[in-house]
Amino acid sequence: MKIIDGGVTAANGFYAAAAAAGIKYKDRTDMALVYSEYPCAAAGTFTTNVVKAAPVVYDREIIRSGAPVQAVIVNSGIANACTGEEGMGYCRRTAEAAGEALGIPATSVLVGSTGVIGMQLPIDRVCAGVKLLADAKKDTLEAGTEAAKAIMTTDTVKKEVAVEITLSGKTVRVGGMSKGSGMIHPNMCTMLGYVTTDAAVSSEMLQKAISEIVQDTFNMISVDGDTSTNDTLLVLANGSAGNEMIAEENEDYRTLYEALRYICETLAKKMAADGEGATRLIESAVIHADTKENAKILAKSVVCSSLTKAAVFGCDANWGRILCALGYSGVQFDPDKTDLYFENDEKKILIFHNGSAADYSEEEATQMLSGDKVRIVSDMNMGEASATAWGCDLTYDYVKINADYRS
Amino acid sequence: MKIIDGGVTAANGFYAAAAAAGIKYKDRTDMALVYSEYPCAAAGTFTTNVVKAAPVVYDREIIRSGAPVQAVIVNSGIANACTGEEGMGYCRRTAEAAGEALGIPATSVLVGSTGVIGMQLPIDRVCAGVKLLADAKKDTLEAGTEAAKAIMTTDTVKKEVAVEITLSGKTVRVGGMSKGSGMIHPNMCTMLGYVTTDAAVSSEMLQKAISEIVQDTFNMISVDGDTSTNDTLLVLANGSAGNEMIAEENEDYRTLYEALRYICETLAKKMAADGEGATRLIESAVIHADTKENAKILAKSVVCSSLTKAAVFGCDANWGRILCALGYSGVQFDPDKTDLYFENDEKKILIFHNGSAADYSEEEATQMLSGDKVRIVSDMNMGEASATAWGCDLTYDYVKINADYRS
Repeated sequence: MKIIDGGVTAANGFYAAAAAAGIKYKDRTDMALVYSEYPCAAAGTFTTNVVKAAPVVYDREIIRSGAPVQAVIVNSGIANACTGEEGMGYCRRTAEAAGEALGIPATSVLVGSTGVIGMQLPIDRVCAGVKLLADAKKDTLEAGTEAAKAIMTTDTVKKEVAVEITLSGKTVRVGGMSKGSGMIHPNMCTMLGYVTTDAAVSSEMLQKAISEIVQDTFNMISVDGDTSTNDTLLVLANGSAGNEMIAEENEDYRTLYEALRYICETLAKKMAADGEGATRLIESAVIHADTKENAKILAKSVVCSSLTKAAVFGCDANWGRILCALGYSGVQFDPDKTDLYFENDEKKILIFHNGSAADYSEEEATQMLSGDKVRIVSDMNMGEASATAWGCDLTYDYVKINADYRS
Repeated sequence: MKIIDGGVTAANGFYAAAAAAGIKYKDRTDMALVYSEYPCAAAGTFTTNVVKAAPVVYDREIIRSGAPVQAVIVNSGIANACTGEEGMGYCRRTAEAAGEALGIPATSVLVGSTGVIGMQLPIDRVCAGVKLLADAKKDTLEAGTEAAKAIMTTDTVKKEVAVEITLSGKTVRVGGMSKGSGMIHPNMCTMLGYVTTDAAVSSEMLQKAISEIVQDTFNMISVDGDTSTNDTLLVLANGSAGNEMIAEENEDYRTLYEALRYICETLAKKMAADGEGATRLIESAVIHADTKENAKILAKSVVCSSLTKAAVFGCDANWGRILCALGYSGVQFDPDKTDLYFENDEKKILIFHNGSAADYSEEEATQMLSGDKVRIVSDMNMGEASATAWGCDLTYDYVKINADYRS
């Protein structure tokens, strides 16, 4: 697997575009298109929130039907959530406008929305934006980057990644983009993520792979514990790389799986690191847990603890809050047998051992919390299961951004 | 039931004291004593965190034994959590010192700690503090207030309340104090809370009452979603009011129950309103839910949502975040049938109805979010169950307090 430049347009046959449609923002692009010149096998995972945004309900139906998909239209101004029948109608009208502008069936168009909950879309501006997108679409890496920028809301950096693999002798590319900074605590999947590949793969195998992969990637990040109404991850595969169609769990499947996993984990970590107001990425690794499920619960409890997150912001090695977060996770364990470490690229220091503080240097611990990335390792000494979760620190800027998001 | 002045010394035969023992703070009191001149029936509830502080383990044993209790010693500098065998030994030594200074059996002394996790207590200073407390103890209301101040950590106001009731013709008083501002998301019980009464009641009936009451009071508040290692609520009843001993669920039991409930609910709300950095109390009422359990989960999900908390801080009527929090709570419901209201002492306005925004005035909604207390009512229109949870807004000061708690 080779890491290459680009995102959703890295794979053959994929086009992208961005447009300033004035949905919410005045001075930036706020609509994006991902388009494939060939019909795609598609897979997706969606929010588990009972309150589902209209585009989630709309896309889920199409993905479940197994019909080929050829385009995705996204806007980043209004979430189209809590908008009733009117909001559902706007999903259909967006897809119809895109079908007409791109010369493809409306049923092969997926839609995505992110932004303020509860407002109705200005549908005329959306339809005008769709025409701009169809005219502007290009298959360059730059077009992919522009799309990645257009789907941002409170994100401070665009998120894209691509890799190249070989399947049955053919070069295959997999690329993706995502957005997400607040209301991040995915369950089943997260925020908006779009992955494209020119691999030939059945929609069943694609869905199987992505459903597994989200459990260890997007579902293991948290910025603020709030699971969005709009979480959506879509994967489109147009088959133009010409590899043998993947229709079973063979070696090609496993190679593609690893590529998809790398794309998803990278995008997930980029989202955690760019959490609203965040100054650093927190990586919480749990090792030697009794079961994988418990390892995940423990790892996630640490990155979800407001107190741990605030301590990391202050570079305060207040490790008692980490033990506390493990303790209220719901998992049973023996604190006296748990070891806690801080780790970075250069070293690993023991913080807690035998039920009380280890003999570490406070200065060294503080210094290890001041990098861009803080890695906390909890060794449960119970078994062989491990898991990693990602989050970010809690800062003044998180409060600032969210106390005044709508204005 | 008549609300009266005072706290833990409101009931007959109870004494309190505060001392500056220099456990952590240099310029304030940091140890407190609650003492009864008569042995008490005692009940308690404790944290469900797997990581339990030494005093939690210590007190729980004594409460379970059913032995009479006569004193509680609390320090507010160091939590004595994650301190291993050494920390357990310091609980015993504190109780022994108190037993000697007060002339009572060491086994009738309970201990409580709150503060930094992971540090060992300076036991010599603790024992010296115990002597100061024993010498200074008084049965005045002022002494109770001084004790309520001495147990504060990041609290900005002391929390106490007392009531007077009549049981079998005798005047009975019930009073309490508590502390808690951060790491507040009680489960079974919360932080440090001490309730005293001169009622004659068996420890079994007292335990039964308090175990039920915490479910609807302390367990329904959240400041930051972090369940402490030290949560403890203790109730002491010395029987000196001379009412007929309550040993069954008779009318006197119900009268005492209501008094205890009022004390616990008032202390819980005071803690939520004084959450770290908070500027306002959020009261989340869920009505017409299908079951009581679901009503509680829904109500609590709203006060735990970082995004809702930040929106309230900004007086931003961003109600989509409230719907979103109900939606990811884990409870099944139909968003299209849910009604959302903002309410204060003067009015109640409909915000969300029939699956989309109601026709409310944005100005009025903003104004209703700017008081000291914000009441959010979610009407599920499903059944007859209801529940209320309390929390507070998320502010810059929460981050400030917790990014630099130890220094």
